[in-house]
Amino acid sequence: MEDLQELLNECQRAARATAGQGEVADYIPALAAADPEAFGMAIATVQGELYHVGDWEQPFSIQSISKLFTLLLALSHGDDTLWQGVGLEPSGTRFNSLFQLESDHGKPRNPFMNAGALVVTDRLQALTGDASGAVLDLLRTESGNPAIAVDPLVAASEAQTIDRNAALGHLIKSYGNLRNEVPVVLDHYIAHCSISASCRDLALVGRMLARHGLAADGTRRLTRSQAKRINAVMLTCGTYDEAGEFAYRVGLPAKSGVGGGMLAIVPGRAAICVRGPRLDPAGNSVAAMTALDHFTTATGWSIF
Amino acid sequence: MEDLQELLNECQRAARATAGQGEVADYIPALAAADPEAFGMAIATVQGELYHVGDWEQPFSIQSISKLFTLLLALSHGDDTLWQGVGLEPSGTRFNSLFQLESDHGKPRNPFMNAGALVVTDRLQALTGDASGAVLDLLRTESGNPAIAVDPLVAASEAQTIDRNAALGHLIKSYGNLRNEVPVVLDHYIAHCSISASCRDLALVGRMLARHGLAADGTRRLTRSQAKRINAVMLTCGTYDEAGEFAYRVGLPAKSGVGGGMLAIVPGRAAICVRGPRLDPAGNSVAAMTALDHFTTATGWSIF
Amino acid sequence: MEDLQELLNECQRAARATAGQGEVADYIPALAAADPEAFGMAIATVQGELYHVGDWEQPFSIQSISKLFTLLLALSHGDDTLWQGVGLEPSGTRFNSLFQLESDHGKPRNPFMNAGALVVTDRLQALTGDASGAVLDLLRTESGNPAIAVDPLVAASEAQTIDRNAALGHLIKSYGNLRNEVPVVLDHYIAHCSISASCRDLALVGRMLARHGLAADGTRRLTRSQAKRINAVMLTCGTYDEAGEFAYRVGLPAKSGVGGGMLAIVPGRAAICVRGPRLDPAGNSVAAMTALDHFTTATGWSIF
Amino acid sequence: MEDLQELLNECQRAARATAGQGEVADYIPALAAADPEAFGMAIATVQGELYHVGDWEQPFSIQSISKLFTLLLALSHGDDTLWQGVGLEPSGTRFNSLFQLESDHGKPRNPFMNAGALVVTDRLQALTGDASGAVLDLLRTESGNPAIAVDPLVAASEAQTIDRNAALGHLIKSYGNLRNEVPVVLDHYIAHCSISASCRDLALVGRMLARHGLAADGTRRLTRSQAKRINAVMLTCGTYDEAGEFAYRVGLPAKSGVGGGMLAIVPGRAAICVRGPRLDPAGNSVAAMTALDHFTTATGWSIF
Repeated sequence: MEDLQELLNECQRAARATAGQGEVADYIPALAAADPEAFGMAIATVQGELYHVGDWEQPFSIQSISKLFTLLLALSHGDDTLWQGVGLEPSGTRFNSLFQLESDHGKPRNPFMNAGALVVTDRLQALTGDASGAVLDLLRTESGNPAIAVDPLVAASEAQTIDRNAALGHLIKSYGNLRNEVPVVLDHYIAHCSISASCRDLALVGRMLARHGLAADGTRRLTRSQAKRINAVMLTCGTYDEAGEFAYRVGLPAKSGVGGGMLAIVPGRAAICVRGPRLDPAGNSVAAMTALDHFTTATGWSIF
Repeated sequence: MEDLQELLNECQRAARATAGQGEVADYIPALAAADPEAFGMAIATVQGELYHVGDWEQPFSIQSISKLFTLLLALSHGDDTLWQGVGLEPSGTRFNSLFQLESDHGKPRNPFMNAGALVVTDRLQALTGDASGAVLDLLRTESGNPAIAVDPLVAASEAQTIDRNAALGHLIKSYGNLRNEVPVVLDHYIAHCSISASCRDLALVGRMLARHGLAADGTRRLTRSQAKRINAVMLTCGTYDEAGEFAYRVGLPAKSGVGGGMLAIVPGRAAICVRGPRLDPAGNSVAAMTALDHFTTATGWSIF
Repeated sequence: MEDLQELLNECQRAARATAGQGEVADYIPALAAADPEAFGMAIATVQGELYHVGDWEQPFSIQSISKLFTLLLALSHGDDTLWQGVGLEPSGTRFNSLFQLESDHGKPRNPFMNAGALVVTDRLQALTGDASGAVLDLLRTESGNPAIAVDPLVAASEAQTIDRNAALGHLIKSYGNLRNEVPVVLDHYIAHCSISASCRDLALVGRMLARHGLAADGTRRLTRSQAKRINAVMLTCGTYDEAGEFAYRVGLPAKSGVGGGMLAIVPGRAAICVRGPRLDPAGNSVAAMTALDHFTTATGWSIF
Repeated sequence: MEDLQELLNECQRAARATAGQGEVADYIPALAAADPEAFGMAIATVQGELYHVGDWEQPFSIQSISKLFTLLLALSHGDDTLWQGVGLEPSGTRFNSLFQLESDHGKPRNPFMNAGALVVTDRLQALTGDASGAVLDLLRTESGNPAIAVDPLVAASEAQTIDRNAALGHLIKSYGNLRNEVPVVLDHYIAHCSISASCRDLALVGRMLARHGLAADGTRRLTRSQAKRINAVMLTCGTYDEAGEFAYRVGLPAKSGVGGGMLAIVPGRAAICVRGPRLDPAGNSVAAMTALDHFTTATGWSIF
């Protein structure tokens, strides 16, 4: 499908035109060292095609995109009690998770806020005994890339700046909403956020959601209903306090990370991963939003 | 299409099974007087078909569904500055609009919160000189029902309990984000919220969004992009603090009102209006959510 | 008592040394026009002496100092239900009265916040039929100055910027905590805040609290207990979000206004009024705080 | 002074009349085991007299009263930078310290909130190398009672329920406002809160503040100004979210603890310690407030 390849090239040109806009995350050295103008994009279609452009094979820190995978895994293990411990609603507040957590007695509003991801990590740990290992397994299996791994430098840096998340963890624990000890949960949280993977890898993993739950080997890993619901959570909560803006501009379920990655799903068609390190004030990649905006405008592949 | 009619009958049965669940809005007598078990449902397809069941022609108070129409009209008039005065993000907070309004210096987070609807009403008033009249015109024209009108009893009751919205209006005004005087805006706000219309009427009006902006007479009233974007706002903000739950369960853009109505859009296919007066704690119709859940499960017409 | 006069001169020198610090309130033209370096100070002892320095006889806008007088009057009328409608606790928040008002269902935390002063004004209006007139009467009687009056220019300006207070009023009303209509309460609130009086006048009125409730003519206007309690409220809530700092530095009950005035009470000894228009970030007069700090350090007349 | 002894007997009778009101703190077993109707009261005058009634010599858990001693010690060591890390203002919010901590970037509003006490403990630890040991030394020296000690059962229970304070500690640390590691600060915080002492002991220690800084052995441990300022902080922040009510009713600087103790200062005259385990909704001892209310009404020893 030559058109799609040509379109990817256009997306890259559109993204490149944003050079200099936004700031690379700098709260840890390993992220700050990224080339600000790096750009990669990969599309994995449900038919099995793979289109790509730029640094599509270069690994980067997936950061919060890992929260999508912990959610997917917890649901795929059939954790029916998950939604008792974490909500489904957009958070809508910069006065953030701590205030909300208190108001809601230790139940985070959704699985993609840090607080919610701690709860999901805790549940996945209870289900598997190795939450971050389970994420690594999922990524390696779906992408066919056994080299995907935790970046030890990133993990060490994250551990140095974990106090805020430790505060969230202890607060949740004080309400009885963690099953494991706080340090255990934090360790696995740090580990899965510190995984490095490429646009190629992530597009292949995301394809499971575009396929409504079918894994790379054709087995069903999520029910159709679970897959649709994960897409719904991505749309309403996947891009920080910019979910409304993103739905309005791009119109696709997506999950972003401060490493500059963004994984978007076109249900029934494809998964798209874009990466550019410069972030807008909400924490989403400027290049990824621009590329995806261009892509959905050209293809009409918005869900709306 | 006999199947669709049969499905509507099933939706009614599913909704009827929720009899007794939820509470009818009772903050004004005119709403409290509604038959709690009333139920109606209508589907207007983009091809022009109309399916229906129950009290589909009985008018009810559209309440907050009118906020969808003020937004549609303000955008259709090409108000490019609208998004400077009101945001696009889910509100995510019960500690609500007043706290958020202060934090954001008088800019409501989205057009479907009361505060945001006051700003949109204000802009529509500035554009047309008669905001509530413009809503009436839209509803009458698209539905072909010239009898649609403001219910004077509802409007009088609303005026008696307007203090909270007056507080919102004055606070917004104190930040310079209203162009008209507060009482003028409140009057038009009360009027458009007090309009009575039926499931039939609202499904026909909503069809414009399913048709990506084409009006009943075939003229284009919204650009394709505008229509898609309104759908996006409905999905993320249209069902109060239950938008995430609704996206997860039903997966359609929708706008609800405390009169028990809910107007949902299946982009490219149909608009669906359901009405049942009993509300869940978030303020959405129990019957409507149940009927729509059944409908999308059966048809697969979720957007995800 | 020559020493006290000499001490006043020193206080003036200390205050003058702060020239240029702080900003004159400028939200209305009538306040912005004040000479930034104006300074006056008067002490009225319980024995009847009057000491003074600087522009002690020049009238200025008393602004929030009037809230002390509405409280005094409401209590002196024996309103036993006042504390059901307004609390006694420091507010301690810049995210202010609107958020707190919602959390506390329309009951302001104390009588010196704008919201609380609206409730007290409402009650005084219910008790007297003319709340602002009652304040004027009190000031004229205690000071012996019949020329004390509402400044019409200030009142007109205040009316132009009343939206925020109108928001507070409507919110309180929505919880059923106002007995009069919102516009009536706002009118009297504006009027008593717009009264002009001098340091001399206010020190003489404040003397009633230093005398534990005895009026200028020797009659008892407040019980000893009422007077002590008003002093307690002044200490904990009288200087905006700087009450703790003020108690720590100066250690006297006091009420300030954005006109730059500050009325402090030395229980059993004297009332002191200082005025300098430049305000610190919390809204208290830099010159007044400096002069009072110097005064209590020199005399040891702190209550602690 | 027989009158004062007789007055203490009256205070006890007044307090006993509140039998059954309020609830004993039950978040840890060691506190829940207290006799609900236990009552003790002791007054240590600046002249050296000691009056007492009831269980005045029975040790109880001092809990938050220890926060007064950490503050006193940090100031007595001349920590001029203390107020950069902790504020002086009443907190005025039940939506509490976490929300405020975020808004104020990790600076607690005052030294008597848990968050503020963690900062003061941290500074005292930095100054002395043994914060809880320094508190024990102070109490033993001033009271002449070498048996004062940490209750190991209470400390063990506190350690079991420390998650909320751990959350506060990590949040403060995330803003760079702790000099020691979080677990070290928590250990010393738990230890000094778990000290047991009697009304006799605490009244003798508090006498230093009534004496404006003079220790039991006549040496000056605080400057006169420091002592006054500590009294000011007690008045505005010493009794949780009831400081305004307490100032209004009792009119003395005081610090309370959930063990049911309350230490009040009559500057220049005496220190009074009262203890009764039943707490009002704000967390202050019902018996202590009643006894002190009776006491100041009878003696006129309010500061106002």
